[in-house]
Amino acid sequence: MNVYKIAVIAGDGIGPEVINEGVKVLNKVAELAGDFSFEFTYFPWGCEYYLEHGKMLPDDGMEQLKKFEAVYLGAVGYPGVPDHISLRELLLKIRKQFDQYVNVRPVKLLQGAPCPLKDVTRDQIDMVVIRENSEGEYAGAGDWLFKGKPEEVVLQTGVFSRKGTERIIRYAYELARKTGRTLTSISKANALNYSMVFWDQVFEEVGQEYPDVETHSYLVDAASMFFVKQPERFQIVVTSNLFGDIITDLGAAIAGGMGLAAGANLNPERVYPSMFEPIHGSAPDIAHQGIANPLAALWSASQILDFFGHENWGAKVLDVIEQVMVDKKTLTPDMGGVSSTEEVGNEVVALLSALKTSQV
Amino acid sequence: MNVYKIAVIAGDGIGPEVINEGVKVLNKVAELAGDFSFEFTYFPWGCEYYLEHGKMLPDDGMEQLKKFEAVYLGAVGYPGVPDHISLRELLLKIRKQFDQYVNVRPVKLLQGAPCPLKDVTRDQIDMVVIRENSEGEYAGAGDWLFKGKPEEVVLQTGVFSRKGTERIIRYAYELARKTGRTLTSISKANALNYSMVFWDQVFEEVGQEYPDVETHSYLVDAASMFFVKQPERFQIVVTSNLFGDIITDLGAAIAGGMGLAAGANLNPERVYPSMFEPIHGSAPDIAHQGIANPLAALWSASQILDFFGHENWGAKVLDVIEQVMVDKKTLTPDMGGVSSTEEVGNEVVALLSALKTSQV
Ligand SMILES: CC(C)[C@H](C(=O)O)[C@@H](O)C(=O)O
Ligand SMILES: CC(C)[C@H](C(=O)O)[C@@H](O)C(=O)O
Repeated sequence: MNVYKIAVIAGDGIGPEVINEGVKVLNKVAELAGDFSFEFTYFPWGCEYYLEHGKMLPDDGMEQLKKFEAVYLGAVGYPGVPDHISLRELLLKIRKQFDQYVNVRPVKLLQGAPCPLKDVTRDQIDMVVIRENSEGEYAGAGDWLFKGKPEEVVLQTGVFSRKGTERIIRYAYELARKTGRTLTSISKANALNYSMVFWDQVFEEVGQEYPDVETHSYLVDAASMFFVKQPERFQIVVTSNLFGDIITDLGAAIAGGMGLAAGANLNPERVYPSMFEPIHGSAPDIAHQGIANPLAALWSASQILDFFGHENWGAKVLDVIEQVMVDKKTLTPDMGGVSSTEEVGNEVVALLSALKTSQV
Repeated sequence: MNVYKIAVIAGDGIGPEVINEGVKVLNKVAELAGDFSFEFTYFPWGCEYYLEHGKMLPDDGMEQLKKFEAVYLGAVGYPGVPDHISLRELLLKIRKQFDQYVNVRPVKLLQGAPCPLKDVTRDQIDMVVIRENSEGEYAGAGDWLFKGKPEEVVLQTGVFSRKGTERIIRYAYELARKTGRTLTSISKANALNYSMVFWDQVFEEVGQEYPDVETHSYLVDAASMFFVKQPERFQIVVTSNLFGDIITDLGAAIAGGMGLAAGANLNPERVYPSMFEPIHGSAPDIAHQGIANPLAALWSASQILDFFGHENWGAKVLDVIEQVMVDKKTLTPDMGGVSSTEEVGNEVVALLSALKTSQV
């Protein structure tokens, strides 16, 4: 029997609350499936840890994580710890050091999910955004010169390597080929005269090897517009780190809100662990009240199941999330319900069990 | 009598068609007002010029433009001329060389304008985006190393000067103070660890001088989401060049589409000409058919009137644009009508005349 080792960094704010439900659901799935199980190891890292120890995780933290196949992350960030510390030294550090260069973010309007767009039907919002996750605008390179002087100037350098650009674009082409869907690159060569000219060039070059894949190319500004006006234009999308950040929040907005958006940070070669997270923040304003929406964390759980090759179970979890939203009986306040985080998790567990029973 | 000298670069594609209507409307306004007039000088620069002369404008082009108070620009870009040439060597060149460091883009849902958002009423979309327009991510700085080698790496450097950052933020604070509205800064310090940390710092510093202005600060990803979910959060917005580019297209999407979006590129000190443009592209696919929507170009014309101190007339042009949309009788195909570009322009002229008559 396969035992999947998962490191849990529940993190800050609502992180622990939503991750609890995810762990519960994964355990239930394993129980129902019968031929695999999960072993969860908890790491109490994050902003509380920082306030006590002056660092987000211990010095050997990354070494400890390395032993796992996957990291399940709740949320990072809390008042009192500057974002550029909490995020750069935990979330972004893991993405980068574990070479999780692929960020997969489904943008799919589930049944029952609220959509802010008029005249858009469910089948019009169904894409997967492949975001470069290891370099580009997020490289952290730059300089701050003549501080405090009139000639003060601050530089922020995006770093686009051949290797980094090619591999993400190739990953997207492979996915498009495998799924028979169109591939759209989002860039901005008319203004970013080095990085995005290069990006477009690589997109075209790699495309030579995939004559079977239908491609499109959008400027990031135009793409943002079409996400709202004609989201059906997009199927598989590939884009840079920063553009992916922006466009996937926009994607979350049109596909039911941040309460539903999940992201997988993959190291496809599996040399290092991959990381799964709801993409919402730590929401300090509603933390510890037991009312955070766990559905994004559960969608992440579904991505974890996919990652371990149990796509059938991943799909079932997603189906059940849909069912919960269609029923409308058990939803957290942000979705117009009156249920607690735990009640939503329990409902998902109950529906999974029922599904199993009715299928036997 | 004041004679306002305007350089017209009608440009490519639908540019000339929509600018024609703008010129017509401005002339009509001057005639109705009686105490000022316009003198338009046409420059046939753009992609056609490029294909003939190998450059977008003559060598002394910028010198020629310098003599004018304003430039009225149609659209730039055409198949056969790479965007990074056509735009960088005309549109972006003018913005930069004439130090048009303020880009003002109203995002306002006019009466009768189509809105793709559910449950959003007109008063919820009414903001002005102040975009930095002279440096930042668009500085054009970078490098392309080891071309064609495995270690190939491309750098794109955003340049944020103290002067450039302070003056745009100050402009926005002044506008917020003058109009009594809130000011929201959009940045991304949690990932862009030099430029945006600096941006946030300057936003706070300058804010010390404006204790009367209520401020907010959003990450660009979250802001994109709220543009769609709760646009009423934003009143005056200040942001960087790239973020402004993205967010104003998104703004255009929620406020009636690109057919309605205008932008003013200001050199507030009036040392150099300012430039006014519809922000849509040259739309080669519908060029020369006389069906392009001139309303964005007319909104630009309204901004030109504001610029010359005739805010009352600027407001009237905007009122008339609203009236045309509410009437729905005279609209171009993109807005569901059957009228030509010229017919829409004529209708606006007719309504302006009627307005005048009824007020006399
Ligand atoms: C928290 C932040 C650094 C992060 C990012 O910008 O990548 C987040 O917005 C995300 O999208 O995962
Ligand atoms: C054409 C392009 C270079 C330009 C920009 O990115 O600034 C345009 O999108 C705009 O918003 O005015």
